[in-house]
Amino acid sequence: MQGSRMAELKIPARVLMGPGPSDVDPRVLRALGMPLLGHLDPAFLAIMNDIMEALRSVFRTANRLTLPVSGTGSAGMETLLVNLLEPGDRALVVVQGLFGQRMVDAARRCGAETHVVEAAWGEAVDPAAVERALGQIPGNVKLVAVVHAETSTGVMQPIPPLADIAHRAGALLVVDCVTSLGGCPVEIDAWGVDAAFSGTQKCLSCPPGLAPITLNARAEEAVRARRQPVQSWYLDLTMVMSYWGQERVYHHTAPISMLYAFREALQLVLEEGLEHRFERHRTGSQALAAGLEAMGLELLVTRESRLPSLTTVTIPAGVDELRVRRELLQDFGIEIGGGLGPLKGRVWRIGTMGYSCQEKNIILLLTAMEQVLRRQGQEIPPGAGAAAADAVCASRRPRA
Amino acid sequence: MQGSRMAELKIPARVLMGPGPSDVDPRVLRALGMPLLGHLDPAFLAIMNDIMEALRSVFRTANRLTLPVSGTGSAGMETLLVNLLEPGDRALVVVQGLFGQRMVDAARRCGAETHVVEAAWGEAVDPAAVERALGQIPGNVKLVAVVHAETSTGVMQPIPPLADIAHRAGALLVVDCVTSLGGCPVEIDAWGVDAAFSGTQKCLSCPPGLAPITLNARAEEAVRARRQPVQSWYLDLTMVMSYWGQERVYHHTAPISMLYAFREALQLVLEEGLEHRFERHRTGSQALAAGLEAMGLELLVTRESRLPSLTTVTIPAGVDELRVRRELLQDFGIEIGGGLGPLKGRVWRIGTMGYSCQEKNIILLLTAMEQVLRRQGQEIPPGAGAAAADAVCASRRPRA
Repeated sequence: MQGSRMAELKIPARVLMGPGPSDVDPRVLRALGMPLLGHLDPAFLAIMNDIMEALRSVFRTANRLTLPVSGTGSAGMETLLVNLLEPGDRALVVVQGLFGQRMVDAARRCGAETHVVEAAWGEAVDPAAVERALGQIPGNVKLVAVVHAETSTGVMQPIPPLADIAHRAGALLVVDCVTSLGGCPVEIDAWGVDAAFSGTQKCLSCPPGLAPITLNARAEEAVRARRQPVQSWYLDLTMVMSYWGQERVYHHTAPISMLYAFREALQLVLEEGLEHRFERHRTGSQALAAGLEAMGLELLVTRESRLPSLTTVTIPAGVDELRVRRELLQDFGIEIGGGLGPLKGRVWRIGTMGYSCQEKNIILLLTAMEQVLRRQGQEIPPGAGAAAADAVCASRRPRA
Repeated sequence: MQGSRMAELKIPARVLMGPGPSDVDPRVLRALGMPLLGHLDPAFLAIMNDIMEALRSVFRTANRLTLPVSGTGSAGMETLLVNLLEPGDRALVVVQGLFGQRMVDAARRCGAETHVVEAAWGEAVDPAAVERALGQIPGNVKLVAVVHAETSTGVMQPIPPLADIAHRAGALLVVDCVTSLGGCPVEIDAWGVDAAFSGTQKCLSCPPGLAPITLNARAEEAVRARRQPVQSWYLDLTMVMSYWGQERVYHHTAPISMLYAFREALQLVLEEGLEHRFERHRTGSQALAAGLEAMGLELLVTRESRLPSLTTVTIPAGVDELRVRRELLQDFGIEIGGGLGPLKGRVWRIGTMGYSCQEKNIILLLTAMEQVLRRQGQEIPPGAGAAAADAVCASRRPRA
């Protein structure tokens, strides 16, 4: 090929309302584009320290071992499992969707005897079922893993009861917070979570490429007490933490630019304040739900289990769902997501995450949805955008 | 902490002449800061295709399976080893420095019976020694791994003889091209390399965060013929290639912004032309060597084995080497690297990589080096910068 003939890079304008990545604040884009520093430059080490400290605030933890792994969210999952599990260990994974299934797959690749407790896709698991499943496993269970915000279904799983159950069984609780961190309360210390991972490209509104993790002293001790080396060299926390810690021992070259961006994204989260940010996500998802219901659409998940960052909408009979998504993208520049696994072709996944979670985006999306569904002969009552705007206004606190 | 009190992100100006990252062209920084697309957006899939095609040109290969892995260079190493090796396999790793040692460590974590053939740090290995070592291993050897450009020593290892030796033994040849790709000839197909990995932050002058890899049909077949699943879920090529291939099956969220930057960095490489780029690196490193030698400094590596992208300089007796690096950084904004492993405290590592490899940077560095060495009472003859400029002029072709 004649590569020099590649066209100039041009990026079409989008409003990202799928399951992630979300839109990114221009301040974060500006940070991304700053000139490079070396990965051992004192000015860069200061940036790493700022990130760890801000990340502790966002995870609401005092855990020393709190840092972003140099890979996307799935690398965070893998980091926790390969460091905490080794052949002969037993694990119990709660599965209520695709991302729970992934943890089963990854735990088995660690050589762990991996048990599963399932809930239907679209529902949270009953803590009593987890307790029963744990009781039926002969021998010690080293860890229980669960997804807090299941991105494939839009379900929120309450964590504190599972922490109690895991701890009574002497197991560590590992939590996937990819689609919750920065969008709804994640209380690592108060909930008793032993280890958690997230991604940057959801409610934190930073580009994909980093996986924030946190491990408490108990989980850290489990890593140190391993009988065998971690099977991954790249994700071996005993080495990664020497670089992020006092020692600053070179392990791999940190993704400098992504870390600039992440510092700025965390700064934006802290400037907004976590409580205000959670409320913005709550309000946004309620407005979206009001609009979708005004259009006569049904939501997959009950109100109590619904995520504020991701809404799953049942696709009405007779609708060509791919055409809907294609027209939203082509005609309105809006991205939403399709279903995964058993929900493929059955739901859309609409994100209201981070910088994307703005009233103007929700109103635009609803108006565009009305339009493209009508093109397929669906009888959609008008006024979804207005219903959403009403919901936003109703939820707003009186202003001074 | 009160994270909202973090100071504004400010990046001091640097000239990056260490072992990587190198400086990045402003066009690449601009690409980094473009707004996000979804990872399944048709406009983004087109960018992925452009990258694969350009990367084939840069690797000089027709290999279908040529793509950037979502992690830094070390993730590329791990990707090849965990996909190509499984418990019970035998591997031979050529070790002439730290990055060879790493491959030994990573191969052992795959459960492979891992043999080593060594050369002194600062020398290339004799192909006859590799042949002898292979002959002494009882049973089939699945792969031979070698570093083309050893970043810890500045040595270039000739690859074609090793490819012949590996192939005669029925083994695959895996090559670490982290510090060579884009800076000196890397001929994947012509040399008979079965699989190779690199990083983006060296001679390709893109920020760190991606690891370009390439596998030929034989290596791809070895991955497909595995008896056990790949031990890493994140780096499992059977899944990663479904996302980069025709199927576009979602695996993990690609690092969108980094891929924008990488497309632009590859575009710059192809616009310059590989031969011109190699010549620029040759000229730059020769100018640097001329200047260093004019200062009375000694180079670790013989002229024949020297890398055009990285020069190792022996630290003169009586010099506080950390003070030299600190003053270069603080007083002149220049970063160079220290030694690693047995070369710690014995050498500096000076990079002339990608966008950093410019005459003006080399002259600045030499002048600054003179200055900071004189501060420590070293008797440095003047004129290093002039010697470098002379070398550049002498090497330039007559202009039209």
